[in-house]
Amino acid sequence: MNNFIFQNPTKLVFGKGQIKKLADLLPDSINLMLTFGGGSVTRNGVYDQVKEALRGRNFIEFWGIEPNPRVETLRKAIELGRENNINYLLAVGGGSVLDGSKLIAAGIADETDAWEIVKRGVANKQIPFASVMTVPATGSEMNGGAVISRQETLEKYGFFGNYPRFSILDPEVTYSLSDYQIACGLADAFTHVLEQYLTTPGQSRIMDRWAEGVLLSIKEIAPGIREKPKDYELMADYMLAATLALNDFIRMGVTQDWATHQIGHELTALHGITHGHSLAIVMPGTLRVLKEQKKEKLMQYGERIFGITEGTKAERVDKAIEMTEQFYRSLGLTTRLPEEGIGKEAIDTIATRFNERGVAYGENGNVNGDVTREILLSCL
Amino acid sequence: MNNFIFQNPTKLVFGKGQIKKLADLLPDSINLMLTFGGGSVTRNGVYDQVKEALRGRNFIEFWGIEPNPRVETLRKAIELGRENNINYLLAVGGGSVLDGSKLIAAGIADETDAWEIVKRGVANKQIPFASVMTVPATGSEMNGGAVISRQETLEKYGFFGNYPRFSILDPEVTYSLSDYQIACGLADAFTHVLEQYLTTPGQSRIMDRWAEGVLLSIKEIAPGIREKPKDYELMADYMLAATLALNDFIRMGVTQDWATHQIGHELTALHGITHGHSLAIVMPGTLRVLKEQKKEKLMQYGERIFGITEGTKAERVDKAIEMTEQFYRSLGLTTRLPEEGIGKEAIDTIATRFNERGVAYGENGNVNGDVTREILLSCL
Repeated sequence: MNNFIFQNPTKLVFGKGQIKKLADLLPDSINLMLTFGGGSVTRNGVYDQVKEALRGRNFIEFWGIEPNPRVETLRKAIELGRENNINYLLAVGGGSVLDGSKLIAAGIADETDAWEIVKRGVANKQIPFASVMTVPATGSEMNGGAVISRQETLEKYGFFGNYPRFSILDPEVTYSLSDYQIACGLADAFTHVLEQYLTTPGQSRIMDRWAEGVLLSIKEIAPGIREKPKDYELMADYMLAATLALNDFIRMGVTQDWATHQIGHELTALHGITHGHSLAIVMPGTLRVLKEQKKEKLMQYGERIFGITEGTKAERVDKAIEMTEQFYRSLGLTTRLPEEGIGKEAIDTIATRFNERGVAYGENGNVNGDVTREILLSCL
Repeated sequence: MNNFIFQNPTKLVFGKGQIKKLADLLPDSINLMLTFGGGSVTRNGVYDQVKEALRGRNFIEFWGIEPNPRVETLRKAIELGRENNINYLLAVGGGSVLDGSKLIAAGIADETDAWEIVKRGVANKQIPFASVMTVPATGSEMNGGAVISRQETLEKYGFFGNYPRFSILDPEVTYSLSDYQIACGLADAFTHVLEQYLTTPGQSRIMDRWAEGVLLSIKEIAPGIREKPKDYELMADYMLAATLALNDFIRMGVTQDWATHQIGHELTALHGITHGHSLAIVMPGTLRVLKEQKKEKLMQYGERIFGITEGTKAERVDKAIEMTEQFYRSLGLTTRLPEEGIGKEAIDTIATRFNERGVAYGENGNVNGDVTREILLSCL
């Protein structure tokens, strides 16, 4: 086990009817701004619940944080926040609204231009920020990270250092999500775990077990959710699994990968593929290309998650990768680039961008532009 | 899943050589008191490491917090702290030193007598408190609870509300622990999980998986530790498992039992049985007497932890309980009262005390004095 420091200060307020606790959770005497996406919260009743909980308080609203939030949009919110001396943000929405609001919180407190904060990779200052989270997927409600896009250059990067003060998670608000949103959310959460688990073998028994626990839970609830999308217990398990998949709890003392996410971000930035969906395409490719490096962990994963106990080592590894791709497909997602109209030319573009940036990802730092090309070619 | 609020602010600083980070972790300009147990930290080098890390700082020391820390001792530390305007505590030791220090931290800040704080069950005020934790067992290094004894009346109760600011855990400091300390630590951690897991079925798939993940890890490492007590990877897994067994992470939205702990506290208070050892005796009895109430969870536990898949439901439940007792014995602990010289008379005393107090424990609140008598009779 590697040395590590763990601290996650976010207060998680979970369950039915918890949005009404907003009044007690927010401090008095704050200059509050609420941030939203495109308006789905006005249709599913969440906006009304929030307004009711905040009755008697003053606040301003910023609407229009888009999926894969763009720095160009967020700069407007930062300006609005500064003009109004905003010193507390409440994000109401899914992972994109939360991620965008993390940059707004940093941008209001920091003189630096918002994109510079993203490029720096860490928020040094921020105003307090909390959330009412409505789309289980990214884990943004209980982690310090955010991923921001820049339309001008079609770039998409993460930055860190901004945990919500609190996040309210009411599983009932997920009843209005579309099948596709849920599929992408499940794929996102599942892949978050794989990025922290399918790496170096033998680092921590207990972190392995917890990662496997999230995977098994997601695998178990996925078919049920497709059948009964308003089953409270299923949605509560899904919502909690998505949070625990990426809130630092399963990565104590272990190496991490994240190559699939970096490659997926390119597919999103250049081709508009929804984040969770991009991971369902790339992850099987990453595993196919790096199966030698990851074989011990793939054996363990195959056995503990999919019950693969027969065949040679090579057969078991291949089967585990095949079952992973099948799992994503079982959610209703495509897993090959041509199914989304993406061909070889796009692959060259991404490989070139990685090579030009001089980056290399993965637990061994060996996923450069050339390996990325191999990974994407195997997704054709 | 039940509604819940989760927040654990403790910073966990884990790994080799981390004690030297003390200088950076403690704020400047504090009036610091260090608290210790009986002196084992002077023999295993921890005291020297702490002193070296604190070179150039002023602090006072309080020595002599005993196992099952007594309010009578802790009142002296509170007095010393008040006299010296102490406003920050650093506990160096195992669970007893940490638990005792939580009451010292509360007692220094609160005018109320220390035993009244314990009886009230919650610390309303406290000075900041941190730890260097040396004996993996209680989870006190990352939870808000503490268990305090009162010698005068042979009572032992828990109180809550005091999370350490940070806790340093270096697995190397465990190399000097005795076989019995390790056995009791493993039993304590294992039982903490059972108290949060062998309750109401079907509450949360993911909490079940995480509880099982801790149990499987402890079961897997226990024989290895007995063979190689200086294997860093094993001790790191043990240390992290003990922390994660009782830091709120596995009890989100689920009911809890804790009857075994309450009964065990009586065995400790009246007969001096070491805490972890008392649980190894009582837990199998609790399961034998409450097996009807707990049968669904016992089935799941038997299958997932001990691989019990054959036989009738009743046989599988009995086998799971038998394997639990065997596990405790495999650690080198006794599991029956007569093996510790305790007979029927002691059982009557405990049952009477529970009945007089009018208490009832367990996930269904039905473990009163009479059920406690049954449980202890089944441990003869």
